[in-house]
Amino acid sequence: MVAKLPEEEHPKQAFGWAARDESGVLSPFNFSRRATGEKDVCFKVLYCGMCHSDLHMVKNEWGTSTYPLVPGHEIVGVVTEVGSKVEKFKVGDKVGVGCIVGSCHSCHNCTNNLENYCAETILTYGAKYYDGTITYGGYSDIMVADEHFIVRIPDTLPLDSTAPLLCAGITVYSPLKYYGLDKPGMHVGVVGLGGLGHMAVKFAKGMGVKVTVISTSPSKKQEAVEHLGADSFFSRDQDQMKATMGTMDGIIDTVSATHPLVPLIGLLKTNGKLILVGAPEKPLELAAFPLLMGRKMVGGSGIGGMEETQEMINFAAKHNITADIEVIPIEYVNTAMERMLKADVRYRFVIDISNTIKSTH
Amino acid sequence: MVAKLPEEEHPKQAFGWAARDESGVLSPFNFSRRATGEKDVCFKVLYCGMCHSDLHMVKNEWGTSTYPLVPGHEIVGVVTEVGSKVEKFKVGDKVGVGCIVGSCHSCHNCTNNLENYCAETILTYGAKYYDGTITYGGYSDIMVADEHFIVRIPDTLPLDSTAPLLCAGITVYSPLKYYGLDKPGMHVGVVGLGGLGHMAVKFAKGMGVKVTVISTSPSKKQEAVEHLGADSFFSRDQDQMKATMGTMDGIIDTVSATHPLVPLIGLLKTNGKLILVGAPEKPLELAAFPLLMGRKMVGGSGIGGMEETQEMINFAAKHNITADIEVIPIEYVNTAMERMLKADVRYRFVIDISNTIKSTH
Repeated sequence: MVAKLPEEEHPKQAFGWAARDESGVLSPFNFSRRATGEKDVCFKVLYCGMCHSDLHMVKNEWGTSTYPLVPGHEIVGVVTEVGSKVEKFKVGDKVGVGCIVGSCHSCHNCTNNLENYCAETILTYGAKYYDGTITYGGYSDIMVADEHFIVRIPDTLPLDSTAPLLCAGITVYSPLKYYGLDKPGMHVGVVGLGGLGHMAVKFAKGMGVKVTVISTSPSKKQEAVEHLGADSFFSRDQDQMKATMGTMDGIIDTVSATHPLVPLIGLLKTNGKLILVGAPEKPLELAAFPLLMGRKMVGGSGIGGMEETQEMINFAAKHNITADIEVIPIEYVNTAMERMLKADVRYRFVIDISNTIKSTH
Repeated sequence: MVAKLPEEEHPKQAFGWAARDESGVLSPFNFSRRATGEKDVCFKVLYCGMCHSDLHMVKNEWGTSTYPLVPGHEIVGVVTEVGSKVEKFKVGDKVGVGCIVGSCHSCHNCTNNLENYCAETILTYGAKYYDGTITYGGYSDIMVADEHFIVRIPDTLPLDSTAPLLCAGITVYSPLKYYGLDKPGMHVGVVGLGGLGHMAVKFAKGMGVKVTVISTSPSKKQEAVEHLGADSFFSRDQDQMKATMGTMDGIIDTVSATHPLVPLIGLLKTNGKLILVGAPEKPLELAAFPLLMGRKMVGGSGIGGMEETQEMINFAAKHNITADIEVIPIEYVNTAMERMLKADVRYRFVIDISNTIKSTH
């Protein structure tokens, strides 16, 4: 059997930007999407956020990439077609797709609304779908996905700055809820003030929690406190760390570079929780004694299930929470990747897909 | 001011065995205990368990020891005198003292029955008491302690094999409860089959939990399954590890040597909890990714509060749980220390204090 070309695999013509090799350089790419199945929703992509993992994936830094690779898993748009058995959506609805487009629906995780932890999760891009074709992400003009993995975007939310909630938002919202760090009056630290960190500040504040930002960049203090609304800030300054010892109920640690955990554990109260949502490539050093002495824990969390993703979006609408973004045309995407590598963005690039992507069909 | 000799500090003559220097060798030692205060309970020591931390302390391996040092924090005996304001105990009662004899009683931990996490906890031996004298442990003929730190031993429990519950027992009981690993039908792993590990098996089984023992010694299989009642056993065998991946709700890790955590994290289900109760001297390696991919956590726990210690003893009485012990005379204590260093004991030495300690007064 001769493999079909990406533009001939499926009946729907699609157009996006793809990386062709490990250089990670993105360029225009003709491909195709499946016909809208019974349970599928097809939508016109309006905006797509750029996640740090897109950068890892286009360069195959996790060793799992296949090319051509169309990144993007913070995708929002307007429904253009629904399958005959679709129940929740209709043409014209504002919708979004996040990191996953498939799961087994029968395991313990799936039946507990934790599709994100299903062993058979299908990622939104660069993964093999049920029909054997590779999934393509949101740096493209149209999207087709099973309605189970579609999220409704309330009308009050602006689509561009809502796109990043679908990955960055749920990644920090879910652990705040699961680990019980969402109680008004609690004190939560947020380590790292980037795409994830700035969302953690906003959601925690929305939950009524006192937030302290811990960053390596003292220059971010004004931004954190005056603009994002954090209650306090320190830059791993020894004196400030000491004064804050034992005061936090939990910490959302968004840093994906290797970094020392013990000083962070020291900031926690008895029963405090240090939650990792970034994944450093090398193992971190964990001293057991500080955990034992205060019944503390180091936990992890990865995105969220579909029900909780919808809950997060509804919470965002209620509390006027969106990402701080820089909207860019698709032609700028390679420059944006370079700037993202240098953390030169406050705090998320969002691609204006519908106004700037030009099909060559 | 000239410091008084240990035997002249207080009015009550006492006799025990003490280490005099970092050699850790124990020898007979005359000292004194305070008069029974208003809130104090004085008791004749009958048995005292030997904890692995006694070994560290007599040799100053944690750098905190002062000499002469009388170890012992698994102490049981019979009340001989009570202070005028003592409410819970009377002469003749069977009682015990564990790892702590003092705390601040006013901090957030103390007011939540977590005296064990109070920053001003006073340890049962080798610590400075309120009057400035050094605390002496249970390798001695009598004990005086504030009734708040005295536990009642129900009549149905044999005193010798109950002594180790006061440290080893509560150390594993508390995390099973706090981390919610006490639900019938759950599957819990116990890593390391020593003083702590064998108690973890017994308490978890008492809670109705399915228990798998993980040990580096294949020879312990029969012991674990047939004698202690574990449901299964494996010795870090790769095939058995693989077959057990993702099946455990939690793990009580009692190993205090440095060891890899990632294979243990792999044994956990989504939301699984790896709980450290041993404290390796060197930091452990913690890979973040396995935590993120299953919302797993690594937590710590250290002994337990006084209310929970009493609850644990009552649970033990109800479920006929005691330690497996080897009763020794005090003269054997130095040999027992050497054997403990080689893990040559099933599973706890308990010193028969009242029948073998001979006062020279």
